[in-house]
Order: sequence, then C-alpha cells, then structure tokens
Amino acid sequence: MNLDQIAAILEGLEETIISRFIDRAQFCTNPRVYRPGESGFSGEAEDSLLDIRLRYQERMDSLFGRFCQPEERPFTSVLPEPLRDVTLPSNPLTIADFDKINVTAEIKEAYLKLLPRICSPGSDGQFGSSVEHDVFALQALSRRIHYGAFFVAEAKFRGNPEEYSRLIAAGDRTEIEKKLTRPEVEKMIIERVSVKVNKLQADINTAVRNVIEVDCVSDFFAETIIPLTKEGEVRYLLHRERQ
Amino acid sequence: MNLDQIAAILEGLEETIISRFIDRAQFCTNPRVYRPGESGFSGEAEDSLLDIRLRYQERMDSLFGRFCQPEERPFTSVLPEPLRDVTLPSNPLTIADFDKINVTAEIKEAYLKLLPRICSPGSDGQFGSSVEHDVFALQALSRRIHYGAFFVAEAKFRGNPEEYSRLIAAGDRTEIEKKLTRPEVEKMIIERVSVKVNKLQADINTAVRNVIEVDCVSDFFAETIIPLTKEGEVRYLLHRERQ
Repeated sequence: MNLDQIAAILEGLEETIISRFIDRAQFCTNPRVYRPGESGFSGEAEDSLLDIRLRYQERMDSLFGRFCQPEERPFTSVLPEPLRDVTLPSNPLTIADFDKINVTAEIKEAYLKLLPRICSPGSDGQFGSSVEHDVFALQALSRRIHYGAFFVAEAKFRGNPEEYSRLIAAGDRTEIEKKLTRPEVEKMIIERVSVKVNKLQADINTAVRNVIEVDCVSDFFAETIIPLTKEGEVRYLLHRERQ
Repeated sequence: MNLDQIAAILEGLEETIISRFIDRAQFCTNPRVYRPGESGFSGEAEDSLLDIRLRYQERMDSLFGRFCQPEERPFTSVLPEPLRDVTLPSNPLTIADFDKINVTAEIKEAYLKLLPRICSPGSDGQFGSSVEHDVFALQALSRRIHYGAFFVAEAKFRGNPEEYSRLIAAGDRTEIEKKLTRPEVEKMIIERVSVKVNKLQADINTAVRNVIEVDCVSDFFAETIIPLTKEGEVRYLLHRERQ
C-alpha cells in the first residue's frame, strides 16, 4: 500500500488506454451501433449492438473470473458466477462488496461523447470491429479508474487515518474530495499522457493508420478519468468498513 | 488489388501484433494454463485453460460475424452461425471456402514456443489475464498472416496470370513458392519491425512495465509470420478457383 507503487501501476495502465483509443480510431464513428433497436442482431430488438457485445463479453469474462478483481468493475449486471477456480492475491481493501464502487455508467457516457473526437465521422460498415474495440477501451478505462478509486483511497486513508475517519464519520463529501486532491499530480499525469500519445504515434504510417489528436486524450484524462477516479475514491471512503 | 495498398495494410497490422506481445509479456509464462486437464475450469476435464478461452472467445466472435471476413480464420472448429446481419465489402478473392486456407494450428504452435522468450519464467497466478492476452495475440497473428495469404497471393496472380496458371495446373508447389518470394521485401519488413519494437517501448517506465527484446519479435516475423504467410499464399493459389 505504497502510494508511489500504486501511481506506477496506474501509469502502466495509461498505455493501454491510449492504445485502445488508437485502435478504435481506425474505424469511423458508426453511430448506428450505439442506437437501440438497430443492432441487426437476431432476437435483440431493444439493445444497441454495443450493449449486446458488452453483455456477451462480460458474461464470458465473468465465467473466467474477471470480476473477482476489485479493479475490474463490469458495465452490465446479472452476471454468472465464475466457473474457474480463482485464487487472488490478498488485497488490503476493507470493503466487502466491490460493486458498491462502480462508476461504469459515468465512464460509458463520457466515452461515447469522446468517440466523435477520435473517429472519422460517418459509417464504414465495420460495425462488429467498432464495438469490439469499444469494449476493449471501456474495459481499460474501468480498470484504470477503479484501480485508482480503491487503492489510492485506501493508501491515502492509511497515510492519515484520524483525519479521514473524522471526515467520513461526518459524511463530509466536499472536504474528503478536497483532501484527496493533489493538483500537481493531476497536472503531471496530463502532461505525461500528452507525451505518450505523441510517442506512441510517432512512427505511424499515416497512409495506413489514423492518428488521434493529443488534446482529445489529455482532455479526457483531465475531464473524465481523473475526476471519476476521485469520485470513486470518495465513494470508497464513504463505504469503507472499519476494522 | 494493388500490391502496395495490401502491403500498407499488412504494415498497419504489425503494430497490433507487437502491442499484443508487449501486453502478454506483462505476465509470467504461467505454464499451467497450457497444460490439458489443469484449467481449474468446472466441467472441463480435458482442455487447457487457453483452449477453453479460445473456444469461448471464438464462439462469441462467431455470433457477431467475425469469421465472415476472409482474414479472420478461427483456431477452433464447430462454430455457431452469426446472429448478426453481416454486410461485407465485396472482395476480389476467387475461393468459396475461406477455411481451405487456415494455418492457425501452425500459428498456435509457433506462438507457444515464443512465449518463454517474451515472458518472465514461472507463475504469477494471473492465469485468466494470460490466456486473455494470448487470445488477442493469436487473433492479431491470424489476421496478419491470412490477410497476406489471401490478398497478396491474389494480387500476385493477377500480376502474372499466365505464369501462375501454368504452375498451378502443374501443381508445382516449389516453383510457386519461389515465384512468390521477394527477399528484399522480407528483409525490409524485418528491419521495420525491429525499429517499431524499440519505438513502441522507448518511453515505457521499466519499473512498472516489462519490455520485450527486439530479436524475439524480429525472429518471429522471419521464422514464423513471413513463412506461414507464404505457405498460406501457396495454398490459396492451389485452391484458387478459375473464373
């Protein structure tokens, strides 16, 4: 529960998010796949193709034990129990039900607003590939945001248990959030992400691969990933069980 | 059916392969997941965890229409029909059954031999994540190799239909392969891949992320990807239907 170590793991998860965004940007926006009732999927009259794919993917992943990990929070509900023996490393969290902290609805909403900024407009007919890559991007976001929400919050609590316990007992959301905020760290993350977006695309042959703008990604970290991580941290602390 | 355009698409698929290898290298080899009967998966006494994951993934992907694309050849068989309306762009291939050209058994065998070169030895308990990333790496390899097999072969045939028709009629495998081979292009691909492996990892924080050796990847292109693509090209030409 060392804050530097946790920050290093979060840093590693940034690469995956950026790569998933670049992968998705190889296809057009394909708005049809987000419209309910237009999936073209037999027996699915109501959901969008993205929602159907998310459901199938998460059901499969659940059978393999993905959601036993605290940071892997699902976007859909009513998931089957794992069929696999899952032996997880012990974790230092003091919360029984990880799903009390689940900001996937907010992640998905923000991601769908990002798409027109990173993809070419219109439709290229690559509907299956588009939602496949959406799911990978959403999973990478959920992992990064919930990892931060759980582990950063627990580490910060342990760094100052008296003060946090007082604020938690008082239910003082505003003060908890203020106490969790470190503007200089946020600034550093956003700058590091900007550098990575450039570096990861430095050798792309633009005749073959689409590139994404640095600002889209750094804005998304500033306006979505960092605030939702903090929102998750606050929720974690308010649900944290005393030992 | 322009050979330069096809080469450019193949070039774009290289990035994905390298990224998938780097993703997999974040976990140990975890040999248990490749051993039949040790999956820890309920009701699956015989297969390895990798084979179970491949089967689940490909069944889901098949429902969504992945294998309607010529270059997406599956590793498993007995797959369900798509539940989704799939409208594919017309393709210039003259072969009715894409699965006549399927080198996934060879891809999987070579990939399993590569793993100890890119992963730390031993076991870290991350069995689910390891096979999840194996599947992504295998899919990226299948796409690159079969895309080349189908489209490069068809383009080369069209560049010299009389000569290829003669060799195909004679069933002259050796001469066909010789005629398909362009050593200067192979050399260029291997050099380009080496540069990409370095560039994609140039900013990795090695305290957090494992890196992979350039040679592992360039050797894999030289000894597996390029030869299997060529093997697929030969098979395609021998199965090519006259119009």
